[in-house]
Amino acid sequence: MKSYFSLLYKLSVRSHRLPSFTTSLRRSHIQPQWGSNKTHRKVKIHNPFRDTIMADPKIEEILAPLRASVKEQGDLVRKLKEEKAPEIDVKKAVAELKARKKILEDKELSLAPADELFDRSKMEDLIKRRFFFDQSFAIYGGITGQFDFGPMGCALKSNMIQLWRKYFILQEQMLEVDCSILTPEPVLKASGHVERFADLMTKDIKTGECFRLDHLIKAHLEKIKSEKNAKAELKAEIEDILVKLDGMTADEMSTLMKRFEMKSPVSGNDLTPPIEFNLMFNTQIGPSGLVKGFLRPETAQGIFVNFKRLLEFNQGRLPFAAAQIGNSFRNEISPRSGLLRVREFTMCEIEHFCDTKDHPKFDSIKVTPMLLYSANNQEQGKPAEIMTIGDAVAQGIVNNQTLGYFMARIHLYLLAVGIDSKKLRFRQHMGNEMAHYACDCWDAECLSSYGWIECVGCADRSAYDLTQHSKATGIRLAAEKKLPAPKQIEIIEAVANKAAIGKEFKKDAKVINDTLAAMDNEALQQLQDKLDSDGEFTLSTSNGEFKLNKNLVSVKRTQKTVHVEEIIPSVIEPSFGVGRILYCLLEHNFKMREGDEQRTYFSLPATVAPMKCAVLPLSGNAEFQPFVRELSQELTSVDVSHKVDDSSGSIGRRYARTDELGVPYAITVDFDTTKEPHTVTLRERDGMSQVRLPLADVPGVVRDLSNSKILWADVQNKYPKFEQQETTKGPAA
Amino acid sequence: MKSYFSLLYKLSVRSHRLPSFTTSLRRSHIQPQWGSNKTHRKVKIHNPFRDTIMADPKIEEILAPLRASVKEQGDLVRKLKEEKAPEIDVKKAVAELKARKKILEDKELSLAPADELFDRSKMEDLIKRRFFFDQSFAIYGGITGQFDFGPMGCALKSNMIQLWRKYFILQEQMLEVDCSILTPEPVLKASGHVERFADLMTKDIKTGECFRLDHLIKAHLEKIKSEKNAKAELKAEIEDILVKLDGMTADEMSTLMKRFEMKSPVSGNDLTPPIEFNLMFNTQIGPSGLVKGFLRPETAQGIFVNFKRLLEFNQGRLPFAAAQIGNSFRNEISPRSGLLRVREFTMCEIEHFCDTKDHPKFDSIKVTPMLLYSANNQEQGKPAEIMTIGDAVAQGIVNNQTLGYFMARIHLYLLAVGIDSKKLRFRQHMGNEMAHYACDCWDAECLSSYGWIECVGCADRSAYDLTQHSKATGIRLAAEKKLPAPKQIEIIEAVANKAAIGKEFKKDAKVINDTLAAMDNEALQQLQDKLDSDGEFTLSTSNGEFKLNKNLVSVKRTQKTVHVEEIIPSVIEPSFGVGRILYCLLEHNFKMREGDEQRTYFSLPATVAPMKCAVLPLSGNAEFQPFVRELSQELTSVDVSHKVDDSSGSIGRRYARTDELGVPYAITVDFDTTKEPHTVTLRERDGMSQVRLPLADVPGVVRDLSNSKILWADVQNKYPKFEQQETTKGPAA
Repeated sequence: MKSYFSLLYKLSVRSHRLPSFTTSLRRSHIQPQWGSNKTHRKVKIHNPFRDTIMADPKIEEILAPLRASVKEQGDLVRKLKEEKAPEIDVKKAVAELKARKKILEDKELSLAPADELFDRSKMEDLIKRRFFFDQSFAIYGGITGQFDFGPMGCALKSNMIQLWRKYFILQEQMLEVDCSILTPEPVLKASGHVERFADLMTKDIKTGECFRLDHLIKAHLEKIKSEKNAKAELKAEIEDILVKLDGMTADEMSTLMKRFEMKSPVSGNDLTPPIEFNLMFNTQIGPSGLVKGFLRPETAQGIFVNFKRLLEFNQGRLPFAAAQIGNSFRNEISPRSGLLRVREFTMCEIEHFCDTKDHPKFDSIKVTPMLLYSANNQEQGKPAEIMTIGDAVAQGIVNNQTLGYFMARIHLYLLAVGIDSKKLRFRQHMGNEMAHYACDCWDAECLSSYGWIECVGCADRSAYDLTQHSKATGIRLAAEKKLPAPKQIEIIEAVANKAAIGKEFKKDAKVINDTLAAMDNEALQQLQDKLDSDGEFTLSTSNGEFKLNKNLVSVKRTQKTVHVEEIIPSVIEPSFGVGRILYCLLEHNFKMREGDEQRTYFSLPATVAPMKCAVLPLSGNAEFQPFVRELSQELTSVDVSHKVDDSSGSIGRRYARTDELGVPYAITVDFDTTKEPHTVTLRERDGMSQVRLPLADVPGVVRDLSNSKILWADVQNKYPKFEQQETTKGPAA
Repeated sequence: MKSYFSLLYKLSVRSHRLPSFTTSLRRSHIQPQWGSNKTHRKVKIHNPFRDTIMADPKIEEILAPLRASVKEQGDLVRKLKEEKAPEIDVKKAVAELKARKKILEDKELSLAPADELFDRSKMEDLIKRRFFFDQSFAIYGGITGQFDFGPMGCALKSNMIQLWRKYFILQEQMLEVDCSILTPEPVLKASGHVERFADLMTKDIKTGECFRLDHLIKAHLEKIKSEKNAKAELKAEIEDILVKLDGMTADEMSTLMKRFEMKSPVSGNDLTPPIEFNLMFNTQIGPSGLVKGFLRPETAQGIFVNFKRLLEFNQGRLPFAAAQIGNSFRNEISPRSGLLRVREFTMCEIEHFCDTKDHPKFDSIKVTPMLLYSANNQEQGKPAEIMTIGDAVAQGIVNNQTLGYFMARIHLYLLAVGIDSKKLRFRQHMGNEMAHYACDCWDAECLSSYGWIECVGCADRSAYDLTQHSKATGIRLAAEKKLPAPKQIEIIEAVANKAAIGKEFKKDAKVINDTLAAMDNEALQQLQDKLDSDGEFTLSTSNGEFKLNKNLVSVKRTQKTVHVEEIIPSVIEPSFGVGRILYCLLEHNFKMREGDEQRTYFSLPATVAPMKCAVLPLSGNAEFQPFVRELSQELTSVDVSHKVDDSSGSIGRRYARTDELGVPYAITVDFDTTKEPHTVTLRERDGMSQVRLPLADVPGVVRDLSNSKILWADVQNKYPKFEQQETTKGPAA
C-alpha cells in the first residue's frame, strides 16, 4: 500500500509484497490489454462521495458488520504493537487487517450509487481515433507498456506541465533542475534500487516466456474458482488467498504454485520457482562495457546528488525546494491498464528540504476542504471524511504544516487541470506500511473505472536519502544552521603517534591512522576506557586487527566555540505521475450528449485543453477565406492555440469534431461575417450556447476565456445570443 | 561534413568517415576536458563577418592562392563527376578538396580581426559557480558526456523550448507528438542505425581501455610533430595526414597505426585493430531478455512510425508538419567540449511532409538577410555571402521555397534566443556530402571558441524514411492526392491458377502465389515476355526457383479509372540541438564590465533569461520586508519569474550577482519606498541605468519588458532617471 510515486513504495512494497489497496482494486477491474476491444465494456462508476458525504443509513446497515470486522482487527494490530509482539505475528495481523479493509472498501464501492455509466471502450476508441495517445511502434507490431502521445495528448500533457510549472516552480520559487536519465550503478546502489527494486516473476522452463507471478497465480486461481464443479469450501479458500496475495512472500507464492500445480498458461510447460526481477533497464555507459548504468526509475535521485550545488545556489539557506520534470523508466514484467502501468513515463517531482516543518504560507490554504482517508479511519473501518487541511493539521491527522501545505497545493492543482473534486481523495499510509524513516505519507488518489488510482504521492522522507548518499560518497550532504547563541562543545579525537605507528606497522600504518581518524565519539570513549584500564586497545581495520598501546595512540579532548550546527535536512516529497493524472482527467471529463450516445466529448478545462479554439468557415465559399486567415493570424499573435477546420462536412459535424478534441470554443465565419460590421459566432463546448460578436473582439475574448480571466457567463452577458440550432446528429466529421 | 542533427550525418559521415569541417575545427580548438582549468585559456574569436562583409584587400591578398587552390580542386571534382570517373577517383579528389578548403578556412579565421578576447575558463567558472550546468553525478566521481542543468540552465533551456514551441508549433500549427524513447530493434534496423550508426575505436589489448581512433591518431601525430628533432619533411607529411584524417577509412587508419607504431597513450600496451562501435545504448525491453531495444539516437523515427495516424489526424491532407521535443542518446566513445558532444541531449525536430515544395508563407520572410555559405562558394574557394532568402531561392542557391522558409524561420528563432547575427551562418552541404536521397541540406552554424558549431540541421530528405519503414513493415506509408481530373490507368497483374499450382507444387504453392502477387510492373512485363517467347518462366522465390508454364500463370491487363494518386510525401527536416544552441548563446552573451574583469555577466535577452527580475531590499531593515513580499506576490500574479535576494552584501555586489545570472532587471526597495508615494528603482542589466517608478507600476512594466512589448528606452522616457552610482567593484556576492 506504499505510494507508487515514492521510493517507499518502490523499495518496500515491491520487494516485501505488502498488499496494495489501489493496486488490488486496479487489478480487479483490469482490462487485459489496451484497447482489446472485443466487447463494449461499460463500467458503472460507483462513487460514495457523489452528492454528499452523509452516509446512506441503508447502506451503512450492510456495511456495519464489515466496519466492525476491520476495527476489531485494527485494534488487535495496535495491541500487538504495544505489547511488542514478535514481528511475524504483527505481520500476519496486518495482512489480515488489509484483507478485511479490502472487503469493506469493495463493498462500499459496489453499494454506492452509480453516478454514470462510463463506457471505457467508447472513450478508448475516441482516444485512439483522435490520436490523443496510442501504442508505440504499432506498425511494427507494438510494444506493450509504451505509448506515443499524438497532437492532442501531447498538447494536453504539455499544458498540464506548464500549469504545474506555474503552480509550483513559479509560485513557490522552486529551483528547477534537469538531470541525466542514464545513471551509473553506484548512485542506485546507495538509493537501494539495485538491491530491492524488483518484482517476482516465473519463467516457462522451455520457452523462457515470463509471467508476473502475482498475475499468474491470480488468473490460475480464478479459473479454478469458476469451474462448474468447484466446491464451496475451495472457492472460499481461494477468495481468501486472492485477498492476501499481494502481501505474500516468494516462499508463500512458491508453495501456492506447487499446491495448485501451476503451469504456463500459454504452453502448459513447467515453470521456474519465483525469480526476483529488477525493474530497472540496464545498459553500459561508454564503449568499454565496464561502466554499468541504468535508466533512472525516478527523477528524485538527480536532485539528491546535486544537493550541495543547490544549497550553495540558495546561499546555504534552508528551507528550499528543488523540482524536476522528466521521464523515468521501469521494465514492468507485464504492463497493463493503458497509461496506468507503463514502461516509460513522465514525472514531476519536488524535494522540499527543510529544518523546520512549519510553513510560512500555510495560512493561505488552511481553509481548503479535502477528502481525507486517514490511517486511523482505515484501521477503524470508518470512511474517508471531508475536512479542512487546517483542521487536519491542528488535530494531528496530518503530521505537519509543510506536508499539509503541499497536500492542499496538490489538491488545488488537480482540480485546476480538471480532476473531479468528488473523485479525489487523500489516503494516508497506515503506520505499518511506512518505512521506518518516513513520518507521514499521503497519496492523492483519483477514482476511475479501474478503481482508486494513486496519482500523486506526498511523503515526509526525513533525512534518509541524503544520509545514504553521504555514506556512499563520503561527502557530507548537510546544511549549516546558525545557532541562536554560540555554543561550547567538546571535541574528542584520537591522536596517533604516526612516526611510531609507521615504524611498528609499516605498510599497515596508513589504514591504522585512517581508522583512528574516522572513529566516532562512542568508539573514542571505548578507546580511552581500554587504554586506561588495560593499557592497550585492539583496533579492527579492513586489514585485520592491531594492538595499540598508550605510546602509539591517545585521546584528546578540547573545548571549541561553535556558531553553527550541521543539520541534514528533512525532505518532503510530492511526486506526480503525469500520465496517470492525464488518464484520470480524461475519464472524469468524458461526456456524452444527452440523447445522442454517438456524440461524445471531453469537457476539458480551457487551461489544459489541447487547443483553445477552432475556426470554422461555414462552407468552402471563397469569400470566407480572408476572414479565416486574418482570424488565425490574430489568434496566433495573442498566443491562442487553435485549429482551422475548413474540411467539408456540415458545421454541426465539425462542431462535434472539435468537441471530441476537447476544444472549448469554436468560432464560425458565416455570410454575416463578410458584411460590415464584421461579426462571427462564438460557441462554448459544454453548453453549446453561442453568441455573436465583432470579429475584432474575438481573439482577446478567447484569450481571456482561456486564461480564466473572464467566464463564459461574462461573454453571454456582454454579447447577444446566437440562436441557430445545431441540428446535426450522429458521429463527428 | 554531414549534418550532426540529420540522419545523413549520422549514417554517412560516421560510417564512411567523410571529413567534417565543423568537427575538424572543433577538434583543433578542443579543450581536453570540461572545466579542466589548468591555465586561464583566452581565445581570440576571429570573425570574418564582424563589421562588414567587405573583404579586407590585404587579407584577400594572402588568401588568394589558397582560394585558387580550392577552386582548382573543385573544378577537378566537377570534371571527374561529369566524366563519370571511377568512384574511387572521385572520392580521392573530394578528400583533397575538403583538405584544401579546411586550410583556406583556418587561414581565413586566423586572419580575421579578433573582435574580443573571450576567456572560456572564466565563463566556465561562472557557469559552474552559478550552477547553469555541471557534470552529472560529480559526488560519485562524475560521468563524462553527461550534464545536469541547475536552476539557471534549466530555466534558460525551458524558456528556449517554450519560445521554440511558440515559433514553430503554435505559429505554424504543427502537430506536436511525444513518442517513446525506448525503441525496439526492427525500427532502427529499417532506419539504418543498427547497421551504420558507428564510430571507429581501438582498445588497449590488456586493460580493455577504449580510445576513439581519430582522436588517438591525432594526439599521437601531433606529439611526433612537436618533438624537437622532428624533420621538416615529416612535419609536413603529418600536417597533410591530419587534414585528411577525418575522411579516412578503417584500413587507412589501421595502416597509420602500424606505420607510426601507436600504443595506448595511458599504459603503453598494444592496441587492437580498428573496431566499429555502434553509438546506440542498448537494453532489453521486458523481462525475457529477448526483445532487444535501444535508446533512440534521434527523435525523428517516432514521427515517421506515426505517419499514418498523423496524416489521418490531418484529415488525409498534405502538407503538414509534425514536431517533437525530447531527449536522444548517443554512447560517444570519448565525449568532450562540454555541452557540444554529450551522451544525452535534448532535440527539437520537425518533419514537414509535403507534395509540393512551394510555401504559402514564403513571401512573409523572403526579405530576411542571411549569411549563406553555398556549396558552390565552398567548392570555388569563395567566402560566405549575405543575401536575402528570397534571392537565394530565386537564384536556385537554396533548392526550394519550403526549405528556404524553414531556414529563415530557424534564423529568426536563433536571433530571438540571443545568437549573435554576426556569428551565424548557413552552410550548404556539398553535392558529394549528401546521401543520394537528399536534394539539399543546410546547417545553421554558430561561431564559438570551438570554431563554427553546427546547431541546427535543415535537410530535404525526400521520401527516404517513409519508404524504408514501408518496406520493413509492409504497411504503405503514403498519402492520397485527388487528381485534377480522373485518369485511366492500366493495371497489370499476374493471374495464378491456384488449383493447378497447389497440385503441382504442394507446400511451395503459397510462396509461389505470394511471390506472383508481389511482382511489380517491370517483373510482370518480363513474365509475359518469357511466357510469350518460351512458354514458361522461372520464378525465383525464397524457397528456390520454380518453372511455371502458361497453364499455371498468365498476365492480365485491365483499365481502371482513378480519382486519386498515391504519393509518398517528401520530408523537410529542421533538427535543433538545444544544448549546442544554449552553449553558443552563452558564449555570445558572455560579457565583462569595462575596466573590471572580475565583473562578468550574461546579456541574455529577457525572453529566455532564466529569471526576469530580482527584488533586492537595500538592507536587512525590517521595514522593507512587507514591500518585498507584496512585490513578489504581484510579480507572481502576472507570471513574472523572479528571485528575492535579501542576503547580506552591498547592493552593488547583489546587482553583480543578478548580472551573473543573466537577470535583465533588478528592483530595489529602499527607504524612499517606505514613504508615500511608494516608489522603487528599476535597473537594466546591460547599461546599468536606473529609473525610479511607482511601486504599483513595476510588475506590469517588468512583464511588458520581458515579453518585448515595450523597450527599456520607453521606460527611460516615461520615468525619471535614478542617479545613484554603483560604486562596488570586484566579484559578485
